Amino acid sequence: MQKLEQIQVIAFDADDTLWVNETFFRDAESLFCDLLSGYLPADEAFQILYETEMKNLPLYGYGIKPFTLSLIEAAVRISQGKLPTAMVEQLLDVGKEMLNQPVELLPGIEETLAHLAKDYRLVVATKGDLLDQERKLNKSGLQDCFHHIEIVSDKTPTHYQKLVNHLDIDADEFLMVGNSPRSDILPVLEIGAHAFLVPFHTTWVHEIPDEPIVHPNYRAFDSVRDILDFL
Amino acid sequence: MQKLEQIQVIAFDADDTLWVNETFFRDAESLFCDLLSGYLPADEAFQILYETEMKNLPLYGYGIKPFTLSLIEAAVRISQGKLPTAMVEQLLDVGKEMLNQPVELLPGIEETLAHLAKDYRLVVATKGDLLDQERKLNKSGLQDCFHHIEIVSDKTPTHYQKLVNHLDIDADEFLMVGNSPRSDILPVLEIGAHAFLVPFHTTWVHEIPDEPIVHPNYRAFDSVRDILDFL
Repeated sequence: MQKLEQIQVIAFDADDTLWVNETFFRDAESLFCDLLSGYLPADEAFQILYETEMKNLPLYGYGIKPFTLSLIEAAVRISQGKLPTAMVEQLLDVGKEMLNQPVELLPGIEETLAHLAKDYRLVVATKGDLLDQERKLNKSGLQDCFHHIEIVSDKTPTHYQKLVNHLDIDADEFLMVGNSPRSDILPVLEIGAHAFLVPFHTTWVHEIPDEPIVHPNYRAFDSVRDILDFL
Repeated sequence: MQKLEQIQVIAFDADDTLWVNETFFRDAESLFCDLLSGYLPADEAFQILYETEMKNLPLYGYGIKPFTLSLIEAAVRISQGKLPTAMVEQLLDVGKEMLNQPVELLPGIEETLAHLAKDYRLVVATKGDLLDQERKLNKSGLQDCFHHIEIVSDKTPTHYQKLVNHLDIDADEFLMVGNSPRSDILPVLEIGAHAFLVPFHTTWVHEIPDEPIVHPNYRAFDSVRDILDFL
């Protein structure tokens, strides 16, 4: 088994890599469709929500607050201008509950990070919202494992190159660990860095790539614990 | 005139230090009060909006998206459960328009930064939203002056200490330039760093301190151009 001797910094994606997240979005979408079932069948309501999120993504970015704004906008559209005020309140509350969710660590994360923190500089690299991610990191008890949180507005090759420059290392010394092929793997491979995929059982449709990934700097794992064999 | 020879990194606050921002919030508040004038006089509507913002601040943080969510929540409360759907749409649009505002640089910023960028590492340090601040920086044409953007979830002494550690310098080698005594000056002085105030004509009531500032590491200026005399 070939170890990656040159790695200096390991960046972990946060949501659905360190802790459960996507599940809360899926639950909120179901609740949204239930709330609006008097206007439209669930699949059509979901479709309008998804379209609204995609339309708003360049302006709003990622995270729970953009999602809440899109919930309200989609509900306005679905109700055709007749949205009960109580429903606006419920949608605001959905967002607040998401922000207040307890942090549920994914299996093996704690022990894996404790091991890696001895030998590597670990950072969190996320396109989520800084305040929300800091809150989750503090609740998680993992804060001592990480040097700092890197927030990026999107996870493109350009953003990763900036991150690597900012960390003052070469791309070949950088390893990204995450659950999203589109965000955590493909753009990282493109700049010549290393990327390990640890899939989460639920992945947002927006994050799923069209093609399987084959690359010498890439590996996929069933459990995060298994990455220790390569480091 | 004593120059600050030891400074390594100069951090500029973004909103109302580099470019106009608070004005857009003030305009949005006026529009909000106008929209809801059928329910309450402007001063009472404003008071409820401000209370809503303060209540949501720990959960939502700073920026236009939290502000938009608070606009909607305050409107729900003011309407006593009878908010026309068209008004929800208008408030969503207020937020989007704010995110789409052109960037208006404050007087003297361009030439001052061009000077300083030759001798110092310049960063943007803001508690705003990363995507929004990146967009403004790109629109501003100032991106080549800055090494990178540092987003902090709040501007407390602890956050500044982390920032200074992250920049790998001593507090005494760090200078913050900003318009808010509460966010850009007081917490910076508390960690032993330097702070220059360049006031903006409009300052959010939440940012105004109770006491005048007297400290050897502190200076206030009428124009950002004047800081060059000390650097």
